[in-house]
This record gives sequence, structure tokens and C-alpha cells, in this order.
Amino acid sequence: MARIHNFSAGPAVLPLSVLEATREALLDLDGTGIGLAEMSHRSKPFEAIVADAKARLHRLLRLSDDQDVLFLHGGGNTQFFMVPMNLLRGGSAVYLDTGVWANKAVKEAQRFGTVHVPFSSKATGWDHVPAQGGWGEVDPAAVYFHYTSNNTVAGSEFAYVPEVPASVALVCDASSNILSRDVDGSRFDLIYAGAQKNLGPSGVTVVVIRKSLLDRCDPNLPTMLRYGVHAENGSLYNTPCTIGIYMIREMCRWIDDQGGVAALELRNQARADRLYTLIDGSSRFRALVRPGSRSNMNVTFTTGDADLDLKVVKAAEKAGISGIKGHRSVGGLRASMYNALPDDAVDAIVAFLSDVEAAG
Amino acid sequence: MARIHNFSAGPAVLPLSVLEATREALLDLDGTGIGLAEMSHRSKPFEAIVADAKARLHRLLRLSDDQDVLFLHGGGNTQFFMVPMNLLRGGSAVYLDTGVWANKAVKEAQRFGTVHVPFSSKATGWDHVPAQGGWGEVDPAAVYFHYTSNNTVAGSEFAYVPEVPASVALVCDASSNILSRDVDGSRFDLIYAGAQKNLGPSGVTVVVIRKSLLDRCDPNLPTMLRYGVHAENGSLYNTPCTIGIYMIREMCRWIDDQGGVAALELRNQARADRLYTLIDGSSRFRALVRPGSRSNMNVTFTTGDADLDLKVVKAAEKAGISGIKGHRSVGGLRASMYNALPDDAVDAIVAFLSDVEAAG
Repeated sequence: MARIHNFSAGPAVLPLSVLEATREALLDLDGTGIGLAEMSHRSKPFEAIVADAKARLHRLLRLSDDQDVLFLHGGGNTQFFMVPMNLLRGGSAVYLDTGVWANKAVKEAQRFGTVHVPFSSKATGWDHVPAQGGWGEVDPAAVYFHYTSNNTVAGSEFAYVPEVPASVALVCDASSNILSRDVDGSRFDLIYAGAQKNLGPSGVTVVVIRKSLLDRCDPNLPTMLRYGVHAENGSLYNTPCTIGIYMIREMCRWIDDQGGVAALELRNQARADRLYTLIDGSSRFRALVRPGSRSNMNVTFTTGDADLDLKVVKAAEKAGISGIKGHRSVGGLRASMYNALPDDAVDAIVAFLSDVEAAG
Repeated sequence: MARIHNFSAGPAVLPLSVLEATREALLDLDGTGIGLAEMSHRSKPFEAIVADAKARLHRLLRLSDDQDVLFLHGGGNTQFFMVPMNLLRGGSAVYLDTGVWANKAVKEAQRFGTVHVPFSSKATGWDHVPAQGGWGEVDPAAVYFHYTSNNTVAGSEFAYVPEVPASVALVCDASSNILSRDVDGSRFDLIYAGAQKNLGPSGVTVVVIRKSLLDRCDPNLPTMLRYGVHAENGSLYNTPCTIGIYMIREMCRWIDDQGGVAALELRNQARADRLYTLIDGSSRFRALVRPGSRSNMNVTFTTGDADLDLKVVKAAEKAGISGIKGHRSVGGLRASMYNALPDDAVDAIVAFLSDVEAAG
């Protein structure tokens, strides 16, 4: 079996050790005689896995005791409405419009209250995120402030955590850069992330919520849409995606084996720097995002010619480099380099792009 | 590796061939060089898997051209509110209260309109389902008629498809007996089933919907909660549970290898008959559900003594028989015998219960 270099934006490459552990567990989970996908979610072995996954995420995200980790369904798209449905209740919220997904989150929130969008880079193709405070004053009466820490499609990323008034809850869609930077997670009131980029397979969503926020959620929602129900039941109100939770736990183990999040952050920064340096020095390619806003996870660039971009995608495939076509909404090229991408894949794409450059 | 006899009510035992195919695909899906969980849901290989899974379910469920198969998130519990949220819109619906899950579905529906419950067996521990028409006249103005074709906790099952006025949509929660009986799926306007019993792993929900029903759904719901959005996007509006869909496809293949649904129905009936005959002839055990209402999927029984039931559960575990403890809400004993349960597991539990009986 020859695994190719997988730059997919998600579902994305996973560490071999995670895949191998999952493969082993499929027929027999830890010697129980029952396979991972066949094990009751209420069994002791599986409850221990949920507890372990939670504890590891809690530590790796540097959360505090008043924050809970939940494993939910429906991906980031479900959180786009679940956050305002629970919290907004006719009040107002502040959203930063920094990309396709941030923009979708705005639209879903507008169903449930007043949404202020004090910053948008849409007019320039979402080519940058604001500097700290670049959104002006935040109304202290706003229920929450929502931002997307990494914009998967545009390829931009916040290099800092926004400062907001203490009365305003800080909410972050961290789907595509969670655990790729050593961030102080205790500063967030709510974090959500679909697992299929930096955490595991698709089918499970990690939500971190400050316990005091649970009291402010609408108690009259359908049961499955209430954060409080999932918190009270330790993510086992209904049957969660058991394979996904297991793989997240394995992913957390792998992160520890790599030296933790801080070590990964250094590696991610160095890898992104290599690629951006190559692109900036190229006569053939240009980056799509301004310096200072560029993502370490999703490096977006283009030749400036859609047909030529497609030729590059095809030539890359022949060189064993997969998934560098830009998102269908923006075109161009995109190299997604999540935590699990092996270093040799970065070597390969750097060599490939250098060859394209040299070919003139 | 010694796999034990797994009678879990769900997540439940899966065929070895399905597990082995998944295990192979985890590091390299069909020679693509990319693992199943790492493959973009918008890639050609994965889109082909979704199309194949849909086509196979369409055929095995005997659906007609005006019915669509969707792969959604959140399990049956999410359908409990999503069905009325989309369809009820202040109108009325009829629900049969035949078990714990049916009862939960009633409660979620009450948020969205008037719910009539013309039949309930709650007072007698949900020990039976009604005979055909046992719910009296159905108001032709009702939006839909909802029933649970198999009650996983109580252990009861409908041996027939309810007849309702043509103006009333027929909605079925088939989570725990889908594809275990050769039912004419074209009679249903909406079927839903969490995958983790007869279809695959947890994390994906199959919904069958009649296309004409889509026009009657509330168009103003959050995007992720609209059936129409998922139908228009072929279940790829957002990232679905890709491992789950793959395993459902493999499960459909396995069903064909077994001779199709009709062959499985015969086998399931024979296996259930064996167990009920043993229980009815026993001086030690009694069945919890009345004849005529008994489930072929979940055989519930008891010694009549909670402590003794627990002793039986523990003795069974020592004999390599796992998961026969009744649901925490009712106690007693339960042997779940979904499609994938190997025949030797049935032999083992029959031998075990006969031994308990003989021990006097």
C-alpha cells in the first residue's frame, strides 16, 4: 500500500498511529471481544474512552474547571444555528465576517436576534482578518462575540485571541485550527469544531462550553438542541458517533507523543513559512491572503489563471500530491496542512512547486 | 482474537465482512492511497460510495422513484423533533405510544402542533402494539401518522404496515428493525433509522422521504434542519459521517450476499421463534411482551426477580454472551438479535438459557 500526500481540506489526513489503532479496534476493542463500532455507548469500556477523550481535550486545550467538553452531532453547520438558538434569545451578538463559513454563521444567527457585523473582508475576497480591536467598540450588552479562528476556504487565520468586554461571551468556530496553536482555551466561553480537520473523522463535533453559560440557554428547545442536556448526560443523552470519539482520543494521544500542542505549533509555523516564502518568491504563484492574516493550516495561492491552476492540480496529482484544488467557491490552489500531515508531504509539495517555478 | 456473542441493543454486532472491508479501507480506500476517514466527502471515490449506498438502500427497501434516501446527523432523537418541525407547522398528527422512544417522539412533536395519541400501551409496560386499525379512525386532515415499527426497549414489533387515509403521510421510526423484514417501503412517506442497529455504526441516520413531502416542509428553518436542503445536495450539504456511510454500503452488500431482505426475514423469524418457544416453555423465564406483538429483533424476558435477572446477566457474560441486560428504564433481560448476529450466537444463548432452566 502506498499512501499519497493528502492535502485535503477535510476530511483530512490522519496520523498512521491513529488509523492503525482504529483498525485494530474494529474487530476487538482492547481485548473485550467486541469491536469498536459494535460496543454499546453505555458500556464501561466505551464510557472510559469518552472520559479519557474529554480529559485529554480538557488538558490540551488548557481549559479550566468551569468548562465542559461535549461530543455532539451535525458538524460546524449545526453549531451555526445551535449557538444563537440557545444563547441569543432575541438579544444581540457580534460576528466577524472573515470567510465563507463565518458568513454562513451570520446568516443562521440572524434568525434568532440582532447580528452586528462590524468587520467584513468579503469585498476583497476575505483576504484578511482584522487586527486586534479592528472591529471597534463591542456593546457590553451583546450576548456574545463570534469569530472563526481559521478560515478554511480563504486561507486566513487569527494569530491572536480577540479581547472583548467581560460581559460578552467569547464564541469561536475553531473547526480548522483547533489544537494547532497553543491557545489559552480558558479564555473562551464556547468553542466548537467539526472533528474532520484536526481532530479525527467526520461525524462528531467537539463543543467546549463554560458551565455558567448553560443557565443562560433557552430551556424550551427540542431536547437534542439543548447544550445543557448533553452536558448533564456526559454526551451520552443519545448514541454519539462512537468511532469518532475513539479516534479523537487516539488523536489526543498522538499529540502528546509529538510533544504537545506547543511543539505542533512550532512545526506548523515552520511548515507554513516554508510554503509562503516559496510562493512570495515565485514569479508564477501569488498568495491569496495578506501577510499577517495568513493561515498555517490552509495555504491558498494561485497562478492568476484558472486554467493554469487546474493544470497545476493535475500535475500535482501525477506527482502523488492530492487535494490542492481550491474550494469550489473561490477556485485557485490550496494546500491544507493540518497537524497530522507528515513532514515529507510538505517536502514533496515544496519540491513540486519549485519544479513548476523552475519550468518557467 | 476471540469475538464474543454480542447481544447489544445498539451499537450492535456487525458482519465480519463489513468490519474487514472497513479495516482494509482505513489506510487506503480502494487503492486511492487515501484512507476512508481521510478522503474528502466531495471526492469522486466518496461520491460514488454515497451514490452506491443510496441505490442499494433504495432497492433493498423497495422504494419508488418519488422517494429519496438521505444520510443525516443526530440519530433518531434528532428525527423526533425534525419531523414535526418540518411537517407539523401548527397542524395535527397522530402518534402511537408503543414504547420509550415512541413516547419521546410524542413529547418532541407536541412543541410544534397538536398531537393525538389514540393508542398507548404504557399502562401495561408497553407490552403490546395495536392490531391493524386498533387506533380507531384517523382524521383525514392530520398531517401525518407516526409509529415505531419496532420498540427496542419493550421488545415489541408491528408485524404489519398501518393503513391510514391517503391524505395522511405515513411516518415510521424504523431504527431497530429496518431491513430485517421484507417491507414494501414505497408505502411510507417518511422513514428514519439511526444506523447503529441494523445498518452500521452510530453517527449516521438514514432518512427516506417522499419528494412531494419536501414542498410541504417549513422553508424558514435553520438550514441544517431542512430535509429539502439535504435532498437538493445529495446528503453533501455539509460533511456527513463518511465512515458510517461506507459501512452502510458494505452492510447492503452483505445483505445481498445473504440472499436479500426476504431471506434475512425468514432467518430472523426462525431465530426469534426458537427463543420465544424456549422462554414460553420455561418455568424460570417469562416473556415481557404478549404473543402477536413480540419483536424478532429484541427479545425481552425476565425471571420475575431483579436480583436473579442480574445473576443471569453475569452468568451469561462468563459463558461469552454479552449485552443481555434489559434497558435501564425497564430492567429484566433482553437479547437483541439484529440481522448481523451470527447464528452461533443464537445457538449459544439457547444452550445457556436451557442450562439455566435445567439447573432449576
